[in-house]
Amino acid sequence: MLTPVMTTQDLSQFLDEVFPQIHTGGRAYFVESVAPGEVVVRLKATDMHLRPGGTVSGPSMMALADLAAYVVILAHIGPVALAVTTSLNINFLRKPEPGDLLCTCRLLKLGKRLAVVECGIAGEGEEDYVAHATATYSVPPR
Amino acid sequence: MLTPVMTTQDLSQFLDEVFPQIHTGGRAYFVESVAPGEVVVRLKATDMHLRPGGTVSGPSMMALADLAAYVVILAHIGPVALAVTTSLNINFLRKPEPGDLLCTCRLLKLGKRLAVVECGIAGEGEEDYVAHATATYSVPPR
Amino acid sequence: MLTPVMTTQDLSQFLDEVFPQIHTGGRAYFVESVAPGEVVVRLKATDMHLRPGGTVSGPSMMALADLAAYVVILAHIGPVALAVTTSLNINFLRKPEPGDLLCTCRLLKLGKRLAVVECGIAGEGEEDYVAHATATYSVPPR
Amino acid sequence: MLTPVMTTQDLSQFLDEVFPQIHTGGRAYFVESVAPGEVVVRLKATDMHLRPGGTVSGPSMMALADLAAYVVILAHIGPVALAVTTSLNINFLRKPEPGDLLCTCRLLKLGKRLAVVECGIAGEGEEDYVAHATATYSVPPR
Repeated sequence: MLTPVMTTQDLSQFLDEVFPQIHTGGRAYFVESVAPGEVVVRLKATDMHLRPGGTVSGPSMMALADLAAYVVILAHIGPVALAVTTSLNINFLRKPEPGDLLCTCRLLKLGKRLAVVECGIAGEGEEDYVAHATATYSVPPR
Repeated sequence: MLTPVMTTQDLSQFLDEVFPQIHTGGRAYFVESVAPGEVVVRLKATDMHLRPGGTVSGPSMMALADLAAYVVILAHIGPVALAVTTSLNINFLRKPEPGDLLCTCRLLKLGKRLAVVECGIAGEGEEDYVAHATATYSVPPR
Repeated sequence: MLTPVMTTQDLSQFLDEVFPQIHTGGRAYFVESVAPGEVVVRLKATDMHLRPGGTVSGPSMMALADLAAYVVILAHIGPVALAVTTSLNINFLRKPEPGDLLCTCRLLKLGKRLAVVECGIAGEGEEDYVAHATATYSVPPR
Repeated sequence: MLTPVMTTQDLSQFLDEVFPQIHTGGRAYFVESVAPGEVVVRLKATDMHLRPGGTVSGPSMMALADLAAYVVILAHIGPVALAVTTSLNINFLRKPEPGDLLCTCRLLKLGKRLAVVECGIAGEGEEDYVAHATATYSVPPR
């Protein structure tokens, strides 16, 4: 059974210190919740994340999935900056409606060297995913 | 045999008109060359693309691969804004050195409904890829 | 809301008629259950699916995910042989224990031209996946 | 610069000893050539690899890519059975013509813990790939 070792507040503070550049252009990413094996990260899109028509761009959804993957791993191994993405696979399913996106990210495996996560991205209050991603991270020995 | 129908200049102009937001924070992406079945796109990284230490971030490489995939498709089907990414898979291979990144993107398939591309990202003058991606795009009937 | 249009028995019969070669070496794949948006397919591994030590091989898990993806799509669009896999991405998470494997496959999207599915493979009665896959299928106009 | 440490004959013998079950139903896989960073593996399809119409099935192409990935890694690290696939991503591009398939597999990275390869599958004498895959392998410390 996976048990988180960091709170949403711990995670937010750590990201602010270690990755201030994700807030370039205004604070956009918010750790919403942490649960065993799972986190939710919100993207409050600013102009730089949008495509004409006001919908969030594909690269912004990839960045969101990558960040949420990092957050769910950190939440369970503690504040080690050295976890690095080794691969990411994403399927874009539907055009998102304008508005915030929520990325729910679950640990499929938290191994000694490799973590694998699964992320679903949906509009707030929506059930159908607009995108679905899996990502692998190399995690430091611990 | 695939024959490009747009030049590097055509492609740059089209991107400026249709996706001005990719230049948020300063012009960063440049179409370098177009050849049968292949394009090269340069990322001149600005602060927002970097991680501590001055290396380009994973999400910036994903955005670069996604854009270069779009460019190689446009180059061969003409200026239709409606091609949309349906999936992207990326492997991060090495930490990039500080400096520009070049993304070479090749068409593996240009079908009636689906295009599949392969992208290698490397530092300028480097032979080893720092990242390798494949992407699929839904293309409009033509 | 997705509603299945074929039963487990319909699906088994259709597979037997259209893909008899999946039973080469003995009947190995069984459609276990069908529910809205989801199916479960069992692999009763025979010698040809095993690696030394008696665990199911990677290619056998890929074949299982591919088949279950096909089954969940058929279950919701009816018996059309023409759905074809366009891509498959799989992460191998743990070495399976000897014994049957169950693949639970869910529709993430059932569009006019493209279906996207997510599959988790686990040993019987096990909670942790041994492998997780996503697949895209090109579906015939209907 | 990558230098192979096993010949085609070494590789064939090692596979026969360690994975005899890949020859279930008749010898189908042949290591054709080994070069720095690259191997070619042939699939001489038997009935069990075919779909109605005589074309090689998707799962058979996945198995071919997985095997060729293993072979290119072994060729460069020596006969260690313990390399295991951690992920595989494949795009199916065209329906293959009846006949043998050749899988050309290149090392994109051969790291201390992880190897990443790229594979293109084509009919003999054909230039266009029928499928393209990337795979990651966990490699034993050495």
